[in-house]
Amino acid sequence: MSKKIAGPEIERLVQLLSRLPGLGPRSGRKAVLALLKRRNELLIPLTQALQQAVDKIAQCPQCGNLDTVSPCSICQDPRRDQTMIVVVEDVGDLWALERAGFVSALYHVLGGHLSPLDGIGPDQLNISPLIARAGGDHVKEILLALNATVEGQSTAHYVSDQLASTGVAVSRLAQGVPVGGELDYLDDGTLAAAFKARRRL
Amino acid sequence: MSKKIAGPEIERLVQLLSRLPGLGPRSGRKAVLALLKRRNELLIPLTQALQQAVDKIAQCPQCGNLDTVSPCSICQDPRRDQTMIVVVEDVGDLWALERAGFVSALYHVLGGHLSPLDGIGPDQLNISPLIARAGGDHVKEILLALNATVEGQSTAHYVSDQLASTGVAVSRLAQGVPVGGELDYLDDGTLAAAFKARRRL
Repeated sequence: MSKKIAGPEIERLVQLLSRLPGLGPRSGRKAVLALLKRRNELLIPLTQALQQAVDKIAQCPQCGNLDTVSPCSICQDPRRDQTMIVVVEDVGDLWALERAGFVSALYHVLGGHLSPLDGIGPDQLNISPLIARAGGDHVKEILLALNATVEGQSTAHYVSDQLASTGVAVSRLAQGVPVGGELDYLDDGTLAAAFKARRRL
Repeated sequence: MSKKIAGPEIERLVQLLSRLPGLGPRSGRKAVLALLKRRNELLIPLTQALQQAVDKIAQCPQCGNLDTVSPCSICQDPRRDQTMIVVVEDVGDLWALERAGFVSALYHVLGGHLSPLDGIGPDQLNISPLIARAGGDHVKEILLALNATVEGQSTAHYVSDQLASTGVAVSRLAQGVPVGGELDYLDDGTLAAAFKARRRL
């Protein structure tokens, strides 16, 4: 914001909210107004929820998930398949898989993808702990559920190489036509991948 | 969200952030992830800024603006033109006028517009205190800077009627072609208003 519109406290709140993904200066102001107008229903509960997040939520030392318990509730759940570790780039990806509801294995969050131009090499990611976990007695399969982007796939390639020495089975998600997808709207790369990985009926 | 993805603290945070204007369940989750990932740069400062808002920001008893001082810094500013009161629907409108930077008068925030269907009558708005202020010694002009919507204009009509007895001059914003506006893209109502209010060169 180029111009001060209110006291420094409101300015600062607008500025911070504007930095959330999906919000800009204009929607940041709208959000602050909504908060101030709905003090008891929104402002105070949100402040308390954030304070709880500050106090309680931390990264799981085992898998990198975010939770209020340590190790996280997924790592602690004895009903989960302890033989499989699903490797994801981000906690958001873990949430997406959990929402889909078909995974009942453990996870490992890398914390991003390899990106040499941004100075993110193997040491900046949560890779060595994964190699250590892969060597554990129970683990039989590591599923690399990384994004189907160039960065995600080159990260998968690197992690797969590192895992070779552990002797554990390494897999990745299938590539192809998304369910409900229309061929006419798909990019050439997806079509080519679906063609190459075609299956006999 | 139909499905639990994480502990109750994270769920609650997603739920509350999703209720901000401009955010939904998906962007709420993205916002929570951004906050948790940037604990020191974003999560903690935002929590503190919100706590300050809870503690300090209140409605100005005179004009209805939101500020940390009471009366608000605009009402307290002796350099402002004390003879004119600009009436707006919402604090967001006050901010918009302050950003534009050409108003150096006092304000009065109604807190919305008349909307009988929603149960918002004159008593639910900050109108009586405006009539009282209009009777003050200094006040010479009340500018009704309400939205150019049906609701805004019927509210302006009502307020203007109420102000008739005070003898103070009542004005409203001019209607016409917005600066930079192309006629081809304007609605008929705006064109008709601009035509009716045409000025001799």
